[in-house]
Amino acid sequence: MTVKRYLDDFAAGDRFSTPGITLTEAQIIDFALCYDPQPFHLDARAAADSPYGGLIASGFHTLALGFRLFIQNGMLSESSIGSPGIDELRWRAPVRPGDTLHTQTEVLEMTPSRSKPDRGIVRMRYAVRNQRDEEVLTMVVMHLLRRRPCGVAV
Amino acid sequence: MTVKRYLDDFAAGDRFSTPGITLTEAQIIDFALCYDPQPFHLDARAAADSPYGGLIASGFHTLALGFRLFIQNGMLSESSIGSPGIDELRWRAPVRPGDTLHTQTEVLEMTPSRSKPDRGIVRMRYAVRNQRDEEVLTMVVMHLLRRRPCGVAV
Repeated sequence: MTVKRYLDDFAAGDRFSTPGITLTEAQIIDFALCYDPQPFHLDARAAADSPYGGLIASGFHTLALGFRLFIQNGMLSESSIGSPGIDELRWRAPVRPGDTLHTQTEVLEMTPSRSKPDRGIVRMRYAVRNQRDEEVLTMVVMHLLRRRPCGVAV
Repeated sequence: MTVKRYLDDFAAGDRFSTPGITLTEAQIIDFALCYDPQPFHLDARAAADSPYGGLIASGFHTLALGFRLFIQNGMLSESSIGSPGIDELRWRAPVRPGDTLHTQTEVLEMTPSRSKPDRGIVRMRYAVRNQRDEEVLTMVVMHLLRRRPCGVAV
């Protein structure tokens, strides 16, 4: 069972790592058809002639999957109330059909809210890596988290 | 027919606006199930008890749709070769079932590459707005674009 974490349970330097997920060509094309219909995400022949030399996943696909891998661990299921945003998102290497991704996160900072005493922000650096341990995406996500309610045991 | 644009066809201050798209509850739940399985995106009853008072779209869903609305205009279909990243992404207001979104973009800067003479970066501020013209998402996207090839008429 995953230990539920609240704002106060995070400190700079904490690190987490997720299981992997293998991305198929069908998933890449389906996502791109809905959200990022560019030839190098949709059309294997056009992609072969592109600078990428073959189909690559939409960066928004990699982003959403990288986030899901982290959030599905359930650690934040009682505390997360969304996110104000993301900084410094960088797509660092192409993601191709058959690649297996996992996400590593590191807490950069935990800041209780000044105006709302029941919550605060945890800034986390995400790194989505492939099967060769290359970073394919990095970013800093601000997680808005509840503080541990009175009476909830650590 | 959409006029195809290359790197050199953009200048700071250029503005573009897209048609709208109405987001359904089913789309919100389907996306969240795949990419952002948090109760306020998935479970109408839990969402009613959340700070949002009802189901809201995953921010990654709003992001991907906001990008798609722009890219589908075809303006970049000959020039786009991807993106190195995004800066200052902010989710500014919740997106709810039935909301209609459109995207406004403004060119901040056009910078030819120093090392690769056939391409460069256009930095664009995106604002995704709802039917009340409220900004729901803003960000700065770096578009990597080809320069106009020799022999292609303006």
